[in-house]
Amino acid sequence: MKAALLSGGVGGARFARGLVAALDPGDVTIVGNVGDDVEILGLHVSPDLDSILYTLAGLSDEERGWGRAGETWNALAAAGRWGGEEWFRLGDLDLGLHLVRTQALRGGGPLSEVTADLVRRAGLAVRILPATDDRLRTHVVTPAGTFSFQHWFVARGHRDEVDAVELEGADAARPAPGVLEALESADAILVAPSNPFVSVGPILAVPGIRAALESRRIRCVAVSPLIGGAAVKGPADRMLARMAGGTTPAHVARCYEGLVDALVIDSADAPADAPVELVVTTTLMDDLDASRRLAEVALEAACA
Amino acid sequence: MKAALLSGGVGGARFARGLVAALDPGDVTIVGNVGDDVEILGLHVSPDLDSILYTLAGLSDEERGWGRAGETWNALAAAGRWGGEEWFRLGDLDLGLHLVRTQALRGGGPLSEVTADLVRRAGLAVRILPATDDRLRTHVVTPAGTFSFQHWFVARGHRDEVDAVELEGADAARPAPGVLEALESADAILVAPSNPFVSVGPILAVPGIRAALESRRIRCVAVSPLIGGAAVKGPADRMLARMAGGTTPAHVARCYEGLVDALVIDSADAPADAPVELVVTTTLMDDLDASRRLAEVALEAACA
Repeated sequence: MKAALLSGGVGGARFARGLVAALDPGDVTIVGNVGDDVEILGLHVSPDLDSILYTLAGLSDEERGWGRAGETWNALAAAGRWGGEEWFRLGDLDLGLHLVRTQALRGGGPLSEVTADLVRRAGLAVRILPATDDRLRTHVVTPAGTFSFQHWFVARGHRDEVDAVELEGADAARPAPGVLEALESADAILVAPSNPFVSVGPILAVPGIRAALESRRIRCVAVSPLIGGAAVKGPADRMLARMAGGTTPAHVARCYEGLVDALVIDSADAPADAPVELVVTTTLMDDLDASRRLAEVALEAACA
Repeated sequence: MKAALLSGGVGGARFARGLVAALDPGDVTIVGNVGDDVEILGLHVSPDLDSILYTLAGLSDEERGWGRAGETWNALAAAGRWGGEEWFRLGDLDLGLHLVRTQALRGGGPLSEVTADLVRRAGLAVRILPATDDRLRTHVVTPAGTFSFQHWFVARGHRDEVDAVELEGADAARPAPGVLEALESADAILVAPSNPFVSVGPILAVPGIRAALESRRIRCVAVSPLIGGAAVKGPADRMLARMAGGTTPAHVARCYEGLVDALVIDSADAPADAPVELVVTTTLMDDLDASRRLAEVALEAACA
């Protein structure tokens, strides 16, 4: 059974780990968000792709929730001393990857190829694809002004309410090589429990990807990122409340209108009404078993 | 009293520290070699300028002889895991500087400006100038082939004998802003105890700098890098033996023919004959006091 997963960073990465455990890893393609990619100290950073890579490779820091385990921060501190930007936390181990990726990108390699090489070097059989090799950047419109995603998320600690999300470059972005093929050959398409606006939204904003989902001949199942109407981490609940008008399963489902056939929700959010089929289970992924069980529920719903 | 110093890396940096201690630091301009600059993992590394900067800022690792004290190596190890080059040892603290410099250079700033900013941020009153902002790269011709300087020096452990040194870009290189002014306004011009071929040579190969030295109206004094005909560190002795025909003070002096008025040599190399005035003293710089005493001897010889 082949599955294609649309995924953001941390929560998506945890779900991806469960999916890879539930299936043959070689049958899993993960399409990752690049809207929050950012250039820091001249390096191309792809936080969501890296969260997926690090999590699947067993390199991630489980406690901190992002970045690498055993991380140190000496280069960033030194850069700060010499006048470099310090607002975006780049660890030394993490930097090693950004250096290699940036050098490869400057050499003319597209992000999808560079990412495939990293996945191969991590010894993973799964495929991780950026949604697009083209430049796509997420900006958020807030009462305090419009900010690039990372500026808002990291530098401002996502404290500003978000009125709208702008996806620079989305209209012209083409799906990265392999994305459409993965969606077309999949037996199930899944949407990870990621932020619908800033994690999954930028993927779905690539016209070719959206069209592929709209014309799908198999089922697409999303997993809600909320538990009891609240985000496990991050601002998804606040964004849903403000931009979608609420945090019920119906509000989540409407973010994916016409694109998903079922929504997996936590029992804390049931019973509920929604414009799509609802599947109720435990969605908190506090270990690999929980991630795998959740992935299995989503896969079952996709094959129903 | 104003002094201008032509300097390579480690040995030159130690001498520079003594010179700065002997004079008002604001009256010292150090013109550094850039022939061994190298791009590693997409970053612009200036090993000689950095050795000078780190040494004067008290950041250098005295025991290892290069790089920063308290250094860690996590980013390089991670980069290696992802397929990045690992042959050139870049520590995490060191990387912080290379990131900031590379970003500034890509932003269009010339190396001299970027270096001046680093010096300012280190809180130093001394001036450190690259010999040129133009691209100048040292290659060595050996029986095993022609190699870029760092490839030969680091990757091949400078094991190959050197038949000739080629200085790519030297003919077209212009002195960096401030270099000629420093040479013209100096009361003394000094040449550090650095390798004449690959450390001082690339500086003197910049036509404007060579011409300024040839037409100097003040004395120029070089310090021999050899003690008892042997290099304290590095391949200077082997290069002198093979390319200049010997390792006596006369052989060192002939590397600077027409450019220096006196050569400071170690008592282990005296007595000797040479085509320039010889000044005999103790040249081993095993602490700051020794560096300052050596600088004072050189300054005295320059003012004789």
